[in-house]
Amino acid sequence: MSPDRDRETDRTYLLRALALAAAGAARGEGGPFGALVVRVGAAERESPGEVVGEGCNRVVACNDPTAHAEIVAIRDACRRLGRFHLEDCVLYASSEPCPMCLAAACWARVQRIVYANPRAVAAAVGFCDDDLYCELSLPPAERRVPLEHLALPGADAPLRAWFADPARVRY
Amino acid sequence: MSPDRDRETDRTYLLRALALAAAGAARGEGGPFGALVVRVGAAERESPGEVVGEGCNRVVACNDPTAHAEIVAIRDACRRLGRFHLEDCVLYASSEPCPMCLAAACWARVQRIVYANPRAVAAAVGFCDDDLYCELSLPPAERRVPLEHLALPGADAPLRAWFADPARVRY
Repeated sequence: MSPDRDRETDRTYLLRALALAAAGAARGEGGPFGALVVRVGAAERESPGEVVGEGCNRVVACNDPTAHAEIVAIRDACRRLGRFHLEDCVLYASSEPCPMCLAAACWARVQRIVYANPRAVAAAVGFCDDDLYCELSLPPAERRVPLEHLALPGADAPLRAWFADPARVRY
Repeated sequence: MSPDRDRETDRTYLLRALALAAAGAARGEGGPFGALVVRVGAAERESPGEVVGEGCNRVVACNDPTAHAEIVAIRDACRRLGRFHLEDCVLYASSEPCPMCLAAACWARVQRIVYANPRAVAAAVGFCDDDLYCELSLPPAERRVPLEHLALPGADAPLRAWFADPARVRY
């Protein structure tokens, strides 16, 4: 496809992510965020793709602080495809992913991420994604949520046992 | 409680997180990681606490790249407690949380996080948490997973509608 056609495809999917955002928030499921996972094939630009996962923010509906739209969409796609990697997929998000969702997309190995609203726009209506990026860049001792290391003898035994297991599945 | 007693409590819960890590990996559910959410009350040090959520890594068993032990434990605790914040809880993890889990703990507002194995120990057996911390600190254009902003007219409408809704629930 041509670059113009690519951009048109991106716009189409982002509009759908924005529609999911609006609908989920109108139902009171959570914040105004939506996301899609689109399978585009091994060669990224070969087709406009197929939606294999989607979701809206459901933090409030599910009492689940991890139920951000991107996480919901990634879990949906992996469930439908029956695998834990999405190398052949693109993640579309109505707003810039928070660090949790960005890291989740990396673990899922999506090809790329496209979003519509920068984090500053979400911050203007009270979402703290930008603060969270700042928080995570601080040394552990300076964060609001302290992160403490406690050394224990033999703590690495589960890691070593896993590494020694020829049947281990890497992810 | 005394500081010594606190440390003994931390050790006890970390040993349980390590046991969850070993058991989950032995069952082939995923990587060798375990986590607990312990409710300690409004005043953090007032009691040894009560386990309200636990889990092991289930990425392989569930085909879910977000099913890290900490995420599983946070979701379990929120489900059991029927709320999406855990201000009165401590998260214990067998290994240092990855950026996804660290951000999830911030969203869940846990009081603090205690872990046993530093990320370097997990890296030594092939886990890329440390790489992921480095990746997320790069400018978007330099990352393995490109993050692209595509401006769309009216993209902020769902955010503005949410902000204008007096029934919105903040999280």
